[in-house]
Amino acid sequence: MDRKSKHKRRGRTQSRTNNAIEQLPWKQPRNPYPPFEIVSADQIEEIHLASLRILEEVGIAFLDEEALDILKESGAEIERSTQMVKFAPELIEEYLKKAPSQFTLHSRNPVHNLEVGKDWNIFSMVASPPNCSDIDKGRRAGNFEDFQNLVRLSQHFNTIHMTGGYAVEPVDLPANTRHLDCALAHLLLTDKVFGAYSLGRQRISDTIDMICISRGIKRDQLKTQPSLISIINTSSPLRVDGVMIQGMLEMVRNGQSICVTPFTLSGAMAPVTLAGALSLQNAEALATLAFTQMVAPGSPVVYGGFTSNVDMKSGAPAFGTPELAKSTLIGGQLARRYGLPYRASNVNACNIVDAQAGYESMMSLWPTILSHCNLVKHAAGWMEGGLCASFEKVIVDVELLQMMSSFLEQLSFSGEEMAFDAIAEVGPGGHFFGTQHTLERYEKAFYAPILSDWSNFGMWEEKGTKTAFQRANHIWKQALEEYQQPTLEESRLEALESFVSKRKENPGIPNY
Amino acid sequence: MDRKSKHKRRGRTQSRTNNAIEQLPWKQPRNPYPPFEIVSADQIEEIHLASLRILEEVGIAFLDEEALDILKESGAEIERSTQMVKFAPELIEEYLKKAPSQFTLHSRNPVHNLEVGKDWNIFSMVASPPNCSDIDKGRRAGNFEDFQNLVRLSQHFNTIHMTGGYAVEPVDLPANTRHLDCALAHLLLTDKVFGAYSLGRQRISDTIDMICISRGIKRDQLKTQPSLISIINTSSPLRVDGVMIQGMLEMVRNGQSICVTPFTLSGAMAPVTLAGALSLQNAEALATLAFTQMVAPGSPVVYGGFTSNVDMKSGAPAFGTPELAKSTLIGGQLARRYGLPYRASNVNACNIVDAQAGYESMMSLWPTILSHCNLVKHAAGWMEGGLCASFEKVIVDVELLQMMSSFLEQLSFSGEEMAFDAIAEVGPGGHFFGTQHTLERYEKAFYAPILSDWSNFGMWEEKGTKTAFQRANHIWKQALEEYQQPTLEESRLEALESFVSKRKENPGIPNY
Repeated sequence: MDRKSKHKRRGRTQSRTNNAIEQLPWKQPRNPYPPFEIVSADQIEEIHLASLRILEEVGIAFLDEEALDILKESGAEIERSTQMVKFAPELIEEYLKKAPSQFTLHSRNPVHNLEVGKDWNIFSMVASPPNCSDIDKGRRAGNFEDFQNLVRLSQHFNTIHMTGGYAVEPVDLPANTRHLDCALAHLLLTDKVFGAYSLGRQRISDTIDMICISRGIKRDQLKTQPSLISIINTSSPLRVDGVMIQGMLEMVRNGQSICVTPFTLSGAMAPVTLAGALSLQNAEALATLAFTQMVAPGSPVVYGGFTSNVDMKSGAPAFGTPELAKSTLIGGQLARRYGLPYRASNVNACNIVDAQAGYESMMSLWPTILSHCNLVKHAAGWMEGGLCASFEKVIVDVELLQMMSSFLEQLSFSGEEMAFDAIAEVGPGGHFFGTQHTLERYEKAFYAPILSDWSNFGMWEEKGTKTAFQRANHIWKQALEEYQQPTLEESRLEALESFVSKRKENPGIPNY
Repeated sequence: MDRKSKHKRRGRTQSRTNNAIEQLPWKQPRNPYPPFEIVSADQIEEIHLASLRILEEVGIAFLDEEALDILKESGAEIERSTQMVKFAPELIEEYLKKAPSQFTLHSRNPVHNLEVGKDWNIFSMVASPPNCSDIDKGRRAGNFEDFQNLVRLSQHFNTIHMTGGYAVEPVDLPANTRHLDCALAHLLLTDKVFGAYSLGRQRISDTIDMICISRGIKRDQLKTQPSLISIINTSSPLRVDGVMIQGMLEMVRNGQSICVTPFTLSGAMAPVTLAGALSLQNAEALATLAFTQMVAPGSPVVYGGFTSNVDMKSGAPAFGTPELAKSTLIGGQLARRYGLPYRASNVNACNIVDAQAGYESMMSLWPTILSHCNLVKHAAGWMEGGLCASFEKVIVDVELLQMMSSFLEQLSFSGEEMAFDAIAEVGPGGHFFGTQHTLERYEKAFYAPILSDWSNFGMWEEKGTKTAFQRANHIWKQALEEYQQPTLEESRLEALESFVSKRKENPGIPNY
């Protein structure tokens, strides 16, 4: 990811052949269909009221003194000894109203700006796995080289709209300066939006500075252009961690966006009933979202849902389950109840890219589309309940995301599209291959896959009986060959490198 | 499938262990959610009107003189030389109104009776592939042994509600008596509803006689108890074949049920635009459905949709595409427009049970659920665009169907389910594993998979790094071990065997 490799890669693009991967063009999908709702407005109100009761009668712990000061000043009831905070229902309602229902996430390439909210979809790369894998090198601990290659894939494929945090955790880099290397890589290897981890104030501050440098703007201007998004996972049940709060404060005070996602796995950190788990999810989300609006009214925020379940025999987290499907859909209804953008995920609990990985992903992905999920996290590459990023799964997911984007294109019912004349011309027993109506449209009539193989059995055998897993291996390597690094002004690149090397001299962050 | 093997199998069930496959109990799912609709009522009306225009101005060929007589007598415009039939819009509307919106399919075991229509779901076994495959013996031509084993699997798994035709075509049996052996096998090996092929009048007549014998009833009684269903595929574009018509006449005159499914692959036998292909599908369906009501007003019928697309590069049929998803959903809207039960399919174009098979199936199956499809054909086992029935895919699909059934179970929002007391008791930072609320519910709280492996990577490695494909191989063999043949009165079995052997002496059907 240094300038040398950049130039090398630029040169390589000269030799691109006509066999380049044919993918859909860049386009942020909008959902033209009605949201699919599986519970009634009354039932949504029951969850809402149950959440308010939890926040009023039980409370939630904010493990940070500065947060407690802000909460107290805004009217919440604070118990310093336990750091528990109780909210009157009106207080939650009052502050939630201040959050916008839609905002723009700005990228250093404005073509890649993203709308967040309403009927807009964003597909975001897998984030946070400690391991990664591919067929050639097997499963291994996350590292900076793989991290960079996953960032390159997310830049290369138009259907991946952003990277959300680290596509794989580069554990070979020191923990206290890792964010500097990763932000530099994000700014160099992609010109799409990226995310940052709110692990304390300093990491966020550094990343904000680097975004400013990359665009040649000051913090004041960035404040009016939300460009960074950070996921705040509550430490369920009913806790918000101190380091997360400190990062969140730095984000919010600088106009950057927060997605609050309670980690309410039903049966473990949340009740074994989905109604209970969703009430807890909603309570934790509402309290934390209200807090962001106390810090900076009008801050861009996203309501996140992640309520899946555990296997009650083993305690293992499960994803792509009927329970996750339901909670994803109900989460969308809750987010709409509050007029907030909504985040859910494309997840599975599988160890290898097989039929289970395919169907569990689809059991997650369909509900994200149906629920009008605005930010689909872990949209490409997630495996093993989040413990591994798979290069081959990235390709499987690119196919799924492209299929969903294509599904979201509305049909035309214009006269010509109804094809009466073609039907009359062909008549009984004919076929439509050679008609003018077909010839004029056949090239763009249908979604063309990049991974799916529709050969008949004989042809598929001749080509070597390759599974989708094996074919995906070839495709991600080809994508890395075809990858083109986006341009970045030389002076800004130098300024970024100088910032990073200076910050590394004295990170001021504990090395964990 | 003879009496000997029956007794042997009964004996075997004595040794069933506690490691039996844990599956969901028999239950026909009902969809409690609103249907998901992707086009407006106006657009449905445009398709409706386009179809009526096709039937009025172009017409459709009924390749059977008896049918032409009936159509003429009912008021359609007939051209004998071309066998083309034109319908006034009012004629179609008048006869469509006579069809019921819901009916019961009766089985020889009333527990397995099925409701067809409204919010009821039926998952029907794969039908008609000429080949079958499993990991042990590879891909081979369909044969009677595999046919019987697939029927046993469809009896064993509660989530497969019926078999629709031959799960694999037993090409080792003579074509002109195959229906006799298969009907006997269906009546012996399963007590669920099954389907028959309308390949001429005699085959249907034989099957109806055999159903009567198996229940000890006469044709008059069977006439009031629809028990058999047959798929009528139009020979698109715009033709209904003679043998199909003759079979259909025998079905309808005996009170049995017909599902009309035009074979309108967009780009080949139908226009390259989905709006055009759906107009053609609808025209063919309406004409053939109206015909059934001319023959016997009030006949139980199903509106079938099968509009997928071909790969425009190779001409290969594709399934599990975004186009199929859209046409499945719109097909449901059309069926509701006419107040008719709806049929669609769980299909894919894959050659091996890999990630593609998983995601293409889910790209088909989700829309069947969302569209309130009443009869999901090919719900278990279909591969290769219908050219192969896979034993392992049956197991993958059993998992998918069970997940969907579980998804269709509505959440409870009763006070106890909201879990306020449990949340208050656990408080911040605790967990819910040991609470009374969890202990009372954990056994049945979540869907428990039969195929999906949620082990962590290390445990999965220790167990031999098996893919879902490999695990499914073990499961179908275990299911055959656990299979219990349903009872059938000895005297009826003897009567059936005698009927079959007598009919084989002089089938009266050409041997093709």
